[in-house]
Amino acid sequence: MARLRDIVIDCARPAATARFWAAALDGYAVAPYDEAELARLRALGVAGPDDDPTVLVEPSGGGPRVWCQLVPESKSGKNRLHLDLLAEDPEEETGRLVGLGASVLARHEDHHVLADPEGNEFCLFPAR
Amino acid sequence: MARLRDIVIDCARPAATARFWAAALDGYAVAPYDEAELARLRALGVAGPDDDPTVLVEPSGGGPRVWCQLVPESKSGKNRLHLDLLAEDPEEETGRLVGLGASVLARHEDHHVLADPEGNEFCLFPAR
Repeated sequence: MARLRDIVIDCARPAATARFWAAALDGYAVAPYDEAELARLRALGVAGPDDDPTVLVEPSGGGPRVWCQLVPESKSGKNRLHLDLLAEDPEEETGRLVGLGASVLARHEDHHVLADPEGNEFCLFPAR
Repeated sequence: MARLRDIVIDCARPAATARFWAAALDGYAVAPYDEAELARLRALGVAGPDDDPTVLVEPSGGGPRVWCQLVPESKSGKNRLHLDLLAEDPEEETGRLVGLGASVLARHEDHHVLADPEGNEFCLFPAR
C-alpha cells in the first residue's frame, strides 16, 4: 500500500506561495532552513530561501506536507485537484485569507470559493 | 485559521476514480452508502453509487479525505496540484497500482511518476 505524503503545488513563486499556505493552514509552517538546506541552495546557484525552487510547508501534527515547486509553465484553466478547508467562522476567515493574498472567486450559501495568490482554487466550508 | 479537510479531484467517472484511490492509499476506503446517501442519490435522479456524482474516500485515521466529483470538462494538460505517495517497495507498489488502473509516466532514480485511471499525475517515493 501507499501512504499520502505531500500535496505538491506547481508555482511561479514557490517561497511566496509557501508562506501563504503556511499562514492559511492551522499548524503548518514553512520548514526552517538549516545549514544543509542553505548548502543545497548554494549548490543550485540560487541566492537564498526566497529563490528556493522547492519550498516545504510542514504540519506540526499529522497530515500531508505541502510542497511548493517552481515550474516554467503558468497556470492554465481551473485546477483539476483542489483543497477544501474548514473554518469556524468562514466569513471572518475569508477576510483573513484575502489579507494574506487570496482572492474570492464565488460566495455560495454553504461555502466560499477562493484562490491563493497564484490563482489555485480552494473552497472554505464552515466547521460543524 | 483554516484546517485542511479534503483533496477534491475533478472526474469523468467519480465512483471508479474513488475506488482507485481507496485501493491505492493505506487506510482509505470509499465511504459506505447508508439510507440517507441512497435517498440523496434518488433525489439527484441517479440510479445508484456507480452514478453518484460525488464519491467520498475516507481515511480510517487522520489525514484529509479524498472527494471525487463529476465535472463536465475533461482533463487538460498536466495538473497544477499533485500528490506524492510513499511506499516501502516502490517497484512492487508501482506494479500493484498499475494493476488497479494506474499508468507509469516516468521512472526516475528516486521516484516514479504515475497517473491514476483518469490521468491525474502522482509520484511514488520510497519510504525511508
